[in-house]
Amino acid sequence: MKVSARNALPGKIVEIKKGATTAHVVIDVNGLKVTASITNESVDELDLKVGGEATAIVKSSDVIIAVA
Amino acid sequence: MKVSARNALPGKIVEIKKGATTAHVVIDVNGLKVTASITNESVDELDLKVGGEATAIVKSSDVIIAVA
Amino acid sequence: MKVSARNALPGKIVEIKKGATTAHVVIDVNGLKVTASITNESVDELDLKVGGEATAIVKSSDVIIAVA
Amino acid sequence: MKVSARNALPGKIVEIKKGATTAHVVIDVNGLKVTASITNESVDELDLKVGGEATAIVKSSDVIIAVA
Amino acid sequence: MKVSARNALPGKIVEIKKGATTAHVVIDVNGLKVTASITNESVDELDLKVGGEATAIVKSSDVIIAVA
Amino acid sequence: MKVSARNALPGKIVEIKKGATTAHVVIDVNGLKVTASITNESVDELDLKVGGEATAIVKSSDVIIAVA
Repeated sequence: MKVSARNALPGKIVEIKKGATTAHVVIDVNGLKVTASITNESVDELDLKVGGEATAIVKSSDVIIAVA
Repeated sequence: MKVSARNALPGKIVEIKKGATTAHVVIDVNGLKVTASITNESVDELDLKVGGEATAIVKSSDVIIAVA
Repeated sequence: MKVSARNALPGKIVEIKKGATTAHVVIDVNGLKVTASITNESVDELDLKVGGEATAIVKSSDVIIAVA
Repeated sequence: MKVSARNALPGKIVEIKKGATTAHVVIDVNGLKVTASITNESVDELDLKVGGEATAIVKSSDVIIAVA
Repeated sequence: MKVSARNALPGKIVEIKKGATTAHVVIDVNGLKVTASITNESVDELDLKVGGEATAIVKSSDVIIAVA
Repeated sequence: MKVSARNALPGKIVEIKKGATTAHVVIDVNGLKVTASITNESVDELDLKVGGEATAIVKSSDVIIAVA
């Protein structure tokens, strides 16, 4: 499957924290931590595990640019 | 200024392409290309230039996780 | 590839309209029109064509509920 | 009230699951399940009930396209 | 129609700028300018005019908080 | 730091409600309540307090326009 989102950042899962309905999953991408908040169901269905490989996908319209 | 968005990916601007109202700005973050679509006004107001430093900011709720 | 987004709506592309940087792509999903605005580059890279099959993917945090 | 979001998918609520602050609401749209994550307050204020009619509203800029 | 989005900011349209596919619409909300980027089709279908009344709707998951 | 998001709405924090992973923070902006859902970690890292000053930041692509 290919997706239209411009940003696909591959890395390794380093943390998974489940809440009541929402989970926070942290991926190490080239030394940078990228955090996703997804549903608990998605964590289970994708069988996400710390140490597993995963890609963070972000639409370009969801990226804000900041400058000093 | 500090922001609540969990993801701040610092890098260097490698491409700016302006459309009629929307511009695409590409930042090189540790060798990974991150594309943002922002307004032309923002490109001008932030005085964005190819070669300049910028940070890609993404809310964790805007990150999708994909696995093979 | 499997993705964490909860909503995957499969259908057929019925319209593609390119702007200067942003394109509008309309997918017919079970008789309902779903419109995506994506980058022109994505239209080309995914080789999207009218009549082709495609899936609209939406994060649950991007869905608003309305009632009469 | 009319809204600018291009996607309005009408259906019937088939599931509501409340977390600590965020609820997941599933709407059946022409046989397809669409999940929204909204605040618990919104579930109460909109008086959402399983079996009730509701429309899933999605901005076109929040739709990702995937192809096989 | 009532919507689950927590933020509904009513005001007056003070500017409309159409691009090739995307339009920027600025609403004056209690003296603050709020900019929306929506599709040109939405501007036409909602018959938006400078001076007209409109409400800016934003999901709470799309709001970032910044502090000095 | 300057950001590309077109909407920066300054105000005062009037409510903070933490869930298991997600918190709701309400800012009073010129008499209007703006709600953000952010991670609990962000509330702690930004040291957000009721009565403190904060700015609600919203990308123009995340703003929907509604008319009566």
